[in-house]
Amino acid sequence: MANDNWELKGYLKERTQLIESALDRYLPSATTLPTTLHGAMRYSVFAGGKRIRPILMLAACEAVGGEIKNVLPAACAIEMIHSYSLIHDDLPAMDDDDLRRGNPTNHKVYGEATAILAGDGLLTEAFILLSNPAIRGTATVEQYCEVIHLLAKGAGSRGMVGGQVVDMEAEEKPVDLPTLEYIHTHKTGALILAAIEVGALLGGATTEQRLALCRFGEAAGLAFQVVDDILDIVADEDQLGKDIGSDQQRGKATYPALLGLSGARERADELHTRALDSLSKLGDAARPLREIASYIVNRSH
Amino acid sequence: MANDNWELKGYLKERTQLIESALDRYLPSATTLPTTLHGAMRYSVFAGGKRIRPILMLAACEAVGGEIKNVLPAACAIEMIHSYSLIHDDLPAMDDDDLRRGNPTNHKVYGEATAILAGDGLLTEAFILLSNPAIRGTATVEQYCEVIHLLAKGAGSRGMVGGQVVDMEAEEKPVDLPTLEYIHTHKTGALILAAIEVGALLGGATTEQRLALCRFGEAAGLAFQVVDDILDIVADEDQLGKDIGSDQQRGKATYPALLGLSGARERADELHTRALDSLSKLGDAARPLREIASYIVNRSH
Repeated sequence: MANDNWELKGYLKERTQLIESALDRYLPSATTLPTTLHGAMRYSVFAGGKRIRPILMLAACEAVGGEIKNVLPAACAIEMIHSYSLIHDDLPAMDDDDLRRGNPTNHKVYGEATAILAGDGLLTEAFILLSNPAIRGTATVEQYCEVIHLLAKGAGSRGMVGGQVVDMEAEEKPVDLPTLEYIHTHKTGALILAAIEVGALLGGATTEQRLALCRFGEAAGLAFQVVDDILDIVADEDQLGKDIGSDQQRGKATYPALLGLSGARERADELHTRALDSLSKLGDAARPLREIASYIVNRSH
Repeated sequence: MANDNWELKGYLKERTQLIESALDRYLPSATTLPTTLHGAMRYSVFAGGKRIRPILMLAACEAVGGEIKNVLPAACAIEMIHSYSLIHDDLPAMDDDDLRRGNPTNHKVYGEATAILAGDGLLTEAFILLSNPAIRGTATVEQYCEVIHLLAKGAGSRGMVGGQVVDMEAEEKPVDLPTLEYIHTHKTGALILAAIEVGALLGGATTEQRLALCRFGEAAGLAFQVVDDILDIVADEDQLGKDIGSDQQRGKATYPALLGLSGARERADELHTRALDSLSKLGDAARPLREIASYIVNRSH
């Protein structure tokens, strides 16, 4: 985050606290049986994530004048889904990572079997929460059922999980730009887009607003991944908390590999502009979304 | 299945075909991108399961005079959830099984990473399907949202996944009967109970009927597992399609280990009686449920 932007910093901190306190309420406690499993689920959820997806969801709701308390349970659900995906991604059979944000990965602490099941438990918990009638606030059951549909599609085999498979298949073979864009619009983009669309839906967006926010979500989601690829090359291990250049070592296709570092940087800037343009008809209420998009593109970790 | 009962055999065959044809419609096709992933998902769903859970769901709906077409999508969703759980159970980090129903397990065919993701994809697909407004028939969105809640709770960390964790933790150490019952009421029982309760709900059961069916579901679910434990010891490899006595080899707690073979058999019979007693106020429409309960207890594979 840019150090001169104290306002965004305070906003992100306040939202992070709001989301983490809600996650703590909604997740089964660490004393709920089986305690090992719930401990493992909580370990990864509270391992210091940036909460980008839930923050974007709340900001999209806010951008159309919605009440963020109606969207908070859905924001927690998407963070549970994101956390599950990281646990499974880090497994020895997948990326085989020992560190995540500077801490040992779930399977290094709890063992592989429990890590697989903690991921399964978190994914399922998201849907337990979303289908609980007590959490809807003034939102309707129809709206929450659509939220379930949007998040499941974003997370599933034609969304995030599909992107993950194509990413694996792309290792150690030449990958062209369309394939790379497929990977990223699915692996990361689909869930970020779902975050934005759910925020718009529960915020009571008009059809036009919802479409504008979806265009924003597509551009911001892809920008997020392009910057991730760039950071994988330029950040040092201390900043990113994972092995440096680990994507390169595994022969993964990245934007810098295909476009060069400056070409990738240009692509990120172009997506940033497209994201901001999508919000042109939304007024000052969309300011947080605009600033988050800039933060995504300019972050150094 | 008892060979003298041709009526039940025909019923199960017809229902199996109905369910498998609906699964084929509802699952992403094998030509949908990413094709490897969808191929892997379909491989395990169509690997010759007995379809016990969806058949019980349809039969519970039928037992209260409901329309089975309203419940067919939920029946497919529960089979997707069951299939995902088998894929993950078979992984090297879990039970490390090479064979399932006589065929190579998912990770033996597609590799470990794709198997993990195929499981994730199937679990998520269940919720994509259940939240699709086009599949509800004459059921309401409130009903389907409750279906999502029941199935997610049955499958999650306080249901099936929780039972799986306690089962793993119980390996190689002495286990008492209450722990064994905890394992089985969660690992297998919770999803079977959810199948019955969802069938009752979508079938339009009264509160009293729903409670009676839940009591049936609890007893039948536990009976299913007791018989599974017995079969693991007595069946030969050819009949069961997995390594003989593999639970024993892993030092797993089983009913025969704790109660002896005849004690376990008695327990199964007692649960069978309890299951049938729960249905006493339901008339002839519950006949399929009664016969399925008897089949569960008397099956030889």
